[in-house]
Amino acid sequence: MKSEKNNLPTLSTSLSPSLLHLYDVSSSIVVIVDVLRATSTIATALFNGAKSIIPVDSVADCIKFGRQMEVITAGERDGKIAEGLKYGNTPLQYTAEFIKGKTLVLTTTNGTKLLHMALSEGARGIITGSFCNLSAVCNYLIEQKKNVILACAGWKDRVNIEDTLFSGAVINRIKNNFSLNCDASQIAETLYLEAQKDLFDFMKDHNASHYQRLMGYGLENDIRFCLTIDNANVLAVYDTGRLIKGN
Amino acid sequence: MKSEKNNLPTLSTSLSPSLLHLYDVSSSIVVIVDVLRATSTIATALFNGAKSIIPVDSVADCIKFGRQMEVITAGERDGKIAEGLKYGNTPLQYTAEFIKGKTLVLTTTNGTKLLHMALSEGARGIITGSFCNLSAVCNYLIEQKKNVILACAGWKDRVNIEDTLFSGAVINRIKNNFSLNCDASQIAETLYLEAQKDLFDFMKDHNASHYQRLMGYGLENDIRFCLTIDNANVLAVYDTGRLIKGN
Repeated sequence: MKSEKNNLPTLSTSLSPSLLHLYDVSSSIVVIVDVLRATSTIATALFNGAKSIIPVDSVADCIKFGRQMEVITAGERDGKIAEGLKYGNTPLQYTAEFIKGKTLVLTTTNGTKLLHMALSEGARGIITGSFCNLSAVCNYLIEQKKNVILACAGWKDRVNIEDTLFSGAVINRIKNNFSLNCDASQIAETLYLEAQKDLFDFMKDHNASHYQRLMGYGLENDIRFCLTIDNANVLAVYDTGRLIKGN
Repeated sequence: MKSEKNNLPTLSTSLSPSLLHLYDVSSSIVVIVDVLRATSTIATALFNGAKSIIPVDSVADCIKFGRQMEVITAGERDGKIAEGLKYGNTPLQYTAEFIKGKTLVLTTTNGTKLLHMALSEGARGIITGSFCNLSAVCNYLIEQKKNVILACAGWKDRVNIEDTLFSGAVINRIKNNFSLNCDASQIAETLYLEAQKDLFDFMKDHNASHYQRLMGYGLENDIRFCLTIDNANVLAVYDTGRLIKGN
């Protein structure tokens, strides 16, 4: 029984971008997790028919893309629409009416940077994950039968509650298909099991730093949307410079 | 009410040495946490009358000290007695009969390195913490009324369960005396509240990596000792190159 388990692919959790280098990125599918709000926005835009999403590191690159191509440029810094960009990082904005058939160029404080980190470390595959597309992510990871790293974006390299919770939710669903030898994954699942009854209340009761930040901007609806399971349930796969809807 | 809380010193948790630089070390007392087993051994040796403990980074430095001074040289690498050293990192070895009045020079895989990292980043004060001296640590931190960083040693920079649990135990006891704006601290406390009923069983049930490692060496008694609260309840303070018993 034990040896069977050892033949399974591994499932690990990197709780901060500063810890990603400790894991074997090149043998793994990396799931970029930035629940509030980059990866929730990505899922929602693709779910509502966006052609693709180009993640870029800098606001300047985002503006440059906007001049060269017919795209929607969007992004935030520190939770607000970045200067020079037209749209922000709220998933509620990316309705089908607005985004269908269009290309979105997106830059965010934490999520897009982490994606490029995974890319430069030679990840075997990259997808993005959020509660909005939890089932699509889990089904894909089970089907692939490859090593997985759940890579939390956190906030400016600090560990955060919501990305840890999402990792815990994934682990809770797929752990039987993987070999789990990772304390961070155990911590994430324990946290999720405590919080699953009401994710929003858990964030509120535990004074989550990003909860406070977004509430301060009047974005309670964004938080609630981003903590809703499968409300934009598509797979978001990175492929040669773009995130596209997977099968 | 809110402004009163804001005037309190801050309490933060760094879940890995790789994250310590994200916190304001120079304004804080840093608590070095390496439950299995460095900081448990330190508490036990001081409790049983060791004169002082000199933490050194390398095995070579440890051996050099042993040649120059009348000291006990001890240390481990990867959980085993390091080559060239006489004693290991098991707290059970440091009985009063063995250690009373003596100086211990100690090097460990994770704990002593983290201590020197805190030192080089200009920590305002450094103490070591373990379940063995939980109350002494908490009482000291409450009395000092200064910012605190609970710095987990982890395992080769990966987050581990036991150091996170100890941080959670401290937070649970002292949080009312501090301003807590740190998701990692919330995660640690949630984990501790889940585990507190039986820390050993929690480690076992959650397949903690260090639990497995030490059990593989036949060191169950070490684990049980290190998870016992206040069985060596002294304060261990770093002062000019040495850890000594505090008041």
